Amino acid sequence: MSDLTDIRTPALVLDTGRLQRNLTRMQSRARELKVDLRPHMKTGKSVDVARAATAGQAGGVTVSTLAEAAYFAEAGFTDITYGVGITADKFAEVAEIAGKTGAKVNVVLDSLAAARALADWDGPAGAPIPALIEIDSGQHRAGIAADDAGLLDIARCLHDASGAELAGVMTHAGHSYNCGSVEDIVAVAEAERAAVVSAAERLRAAGLPCPVVSVGSTPTALHAKHLDGVTEMRPGVYMFGDRFQAALGSCDTTDLALSVLATVVGVYPARGLALINAGGLALSQDRSMDAVVGEPSYGAVYDLPGQQALDGLRLGNVNQEHGFLFGDVTDLAVGQRLRVFPNHACMTAAMYDHYHLVDDATAITGTWGRNNGW
Amino acid sequence: MSDLTDIRTPALVLDTGRLQRNLTRMQSRARELKVDLRPHMKTGKSVDVARAATAGQAGGVTVSTLAEAAYFAEAGFTDITYGVGITADKFAEVAEIAGKTGAKVNVVLDSLAAARALADWDGPAGAPIPALIEIDSGQHRAGIAADDAGLLDIARCLHDASGAELAGVMTHAGHSYNCGSVEDIVAVAEAERAAVVSAAERLRAAGLPCPVVSVGSTPTALHAKHLDGVTEMRPGVYMFGDRFQAALGSCDTTDLALSVLATVVGVYPARGLALINAGGLALSQDRSMDAVVGEPSYGAVYDLPGQQALDGLRLGNVNQEHGFLFGDVTDLAVGQRLRVFPNHACMTAAMYDHYHLVDDATAITGTWGRNNGW
Repeated sequence: MSDLTDIRTPALVLDTGRLQRNLTRMQSRARELKVDLRPHMKTGKSVDVARAATAGQAGGVTVSTLAEAAYFAEAGFTDITYGVGITADKFAEVAEIAGKTGAKVNVVLDSLAAARALADWDGPAGAPIPALIEIDSGQHRAGIAADDAGLLDIARCLHDASGAELAGVMTHAGHSYNCGSVEDIVAVAEAERAAVVSAAERLRAAGLPCPVVSVGSTPTALHAKHLDGVTEMRPGVYMFGDRFQAALGSCDTTDLALSVLATVVGVYPARGLALINAGGLALSQDRSMDAVVGEPSYGAVYDLPGQQALDGLRLGNVNQEHGFLFGDVTDLAVGQRLRVFPNHACMTAAMYDHYHLVDDATAITGTWGRNNGW
Repeated sequence: MSDLTDIRTPALVLDTGRLQRNLTRMQSRARELKVDLRPHMKTGKSVDVARAATAGQAGGVTVSTLAEAAYFAEAGFTDITYGVGITADKFAEVAEIAGKTGAKVNVVLDSLAAARALADWDGPAGAPIPALIEIDSGQHRAGIAADDAGLLDIARCLHDASGAELAGVMTHAGHSYNCGSVEDIVAVAEAERAAVVSAAERLRAAGLPCPVVSVGSTPTALHAKHLDGVTEMRPGVYMFGDRFQAALGSCDTTDLALSVLATVVGVYPARGLALINAGGLALSQDRSMDAVVGEPSYGAVYDLPGQQALDGLRLGNVNQEHGFLFGDVTDLAVGQRLRVFPNHACMTAAMYDHYHLVDDATAITGTWGRNNGW
C-alpha cells in the first residue's frame, strides 16, 4: 500500500478518523435538535463522503451545482436540493436528472420572476419540479424577507403551477461566518430559525403547504439553542473543518480532516524563505485568515504526519504553483514533505479529483473520488 | 451549432480571434528579439492552444506541472521544460514521461542538494535528465544569484553526472508584475536578461556548456529593449491576457480572449445587489485588482457579447458559487447572461476542463480540452 511519503504531490489528504468524528458530532446535533440533517455536499463532493454523512439520517443531500446533482442522483441519492437560485436555462437539466434517475431534485428561488418562469416552463407532464422559496435571514445575499408582501405571490404561483410544486422555505445564515463570538452565532442561529419559521407560518396561514422548513450553516447548526419549527438543516463544511471554522469556534484544529500534502522545492535561509509546490491552485487563494492572523496566511503548515504545527513558518504568499514559507527555514530540506491545513476546505478541495485517505498516520488506506466543475 | 445563449453556465469562453492576435504579437516579438518562443502553457493547458502558440517557433513549451508535461508529451510535443523546481520524488515520473514518449523533459533546480539528488539518482541508463539552473534575477522567489559561488558547483555536479545533463540557465522575472510603469518593466527586463546572461558566461568561462539561456514573463517579453545573449523566452499569460495584465500595460482590454459566461440568479434593487452563478470557484478568489480598483473586484462585468462593459456594476464579493454585483442593478433580470473577464486568467481557467470557442460573436465554433490538476 502507498504512503504519504511516496505519492505524487501536491495531493489532497483526508483523515477518515477525524471525518467520522465530525460527522458523528453533527448527526448527534441533528438528533438533539430534532431535525433532519441534509448535509451540503459542496465541500465533500464525493459519494463516499455523502454516504458516511447521511448514515442514520433521512438521506437527503444539498448540492451547489447541477453537476453535483447529476453525480449524486446517478449514485443513488434520491432527494437532492440544489442550493443556488434556479434560472430558466437550468429547468431542462433539472428535469432530465430527475427523469433519468428518479431522484427528487428540489430547486430554490426567491422571486416572482423565477417562479413564473418555472410555472410557464413546458416541462415533462406529471413531473413537477419541487421548489423551495429562499428567505433572507440577515445575510442579505439571496432571499426574500419573511415579511415581504411578495412571499405569498411566489408561493401561490408555485402552488398553482402544474409544472412546479411548492416544497417549502429555506434560508442560509451565511453571516454567521462574520461572527466574533459564540454568543453572536447563537443570535444569528435564532434569527435564521425565526425568519424561516415565520415565513412557513405565513404560507400555512394563507392555506398553502410548507412541508420543508430548512436552515443551514455549520456555525449555526452547532450553536443553535433550539430549532423549533424547522424540519431540516444543511451544514456542509463541518465534515472536514478548516482553519477559518476553527477560528470561528466551529471545531478545534485537531478536528481538521482535510490537508494538502506538499514537497519543499527550495530553501533559501538568507531570504528567510522556503518554497513548496502547493500554491494558489493547490491551496486556493482564500484570504479569510488574513484578519485572524494579522497578515497574509494561505494555510497552516504542519509536519508530514500532520501532528505538529510548524509555527515558525508562515505561508504568506502563493503564486500559481508555488507556496512561500516565510520564517526560520534552516530545518527544512529540498524534497521534504509537509502538510498544509487550508483556510477554506471547500475552495481547496475543488482543485482535486480525488482524496487520499489516511487515519491518523501516513499510510494511505484508500482513495475516494470527487465531482468538480459545473 | 450551440451559442452562448444556450450552453450551461458558468462556462469558460475563449475568443479565438483575440487569441490569434495575441499569439501573433508575441511571435513577432520573439522574431524581433531573435529568441525562440517557448510559451508557458500553465495558462492555456491545452494542446490546441499550444499548437497555435508554437506555430512558426522551435516547438518547445513550458509547463507548470508534471501532469501537463505528460499531457503535452503524449500529444506529440517533444521539448518540454517543467518550470517548478524539481525534487527527487519526481525524477521517476520525469524519466517515465521521457521514456514513454521520446520527449525531452527539461527540469529546473537551483541548489547543490537538488543537483546531487539528481546526480545520485539511479535512473534509466543512457537517458540523462536535462537540467536548467534557475537564476534569481530580482524576484527573490526561487533561483541562485548569478554571482553566487555555488553556481559553478551546481553546474559541475550536473555536468559530471551520468544521469543528468547541464542544459543551461533560466530565470523568471516575476517581479515585473509589481511594476508601476513601462519604464520599470524595461528595467526589470534588462535585469532579467543580464542576470541569466552573466550566469551563462560564468559557466562557459569555467569550460561548462550552457546551450539554453532562458528568460520569461509576459511583461518583460513585451517590453525588453533587446535580449542579447538569451536563447529563448517563456511568457504565458499573453495568450489570453487578463485584467491584471491590462492594468500593467501588457495588453488592452479589447485583447482579453478569456471570459466566464454567467447567469444572473437574483436581482435585489433595494440592496443594490445582483447575484450571478459565478463565484470563487468559477472566477477564482484572485485579489490582484483590489489595489488597482481601490476596492475588492473579482472581475470585469460585460454584456453577453463581451463588447460592452457594465461599468456601473462591481463584482465586489464572491462565495463558492455566487458572485456579488454591487451597483445599479435595475436593468438586470433573473436569467440574463453576462460575461466576466477575470483578474488572473491562469487561476480562473484552471477550474474548467474545456473552452467554448467564439470569434467576436456569441455563436460557439467549437470546444478545446484542457489539462488540470497534478
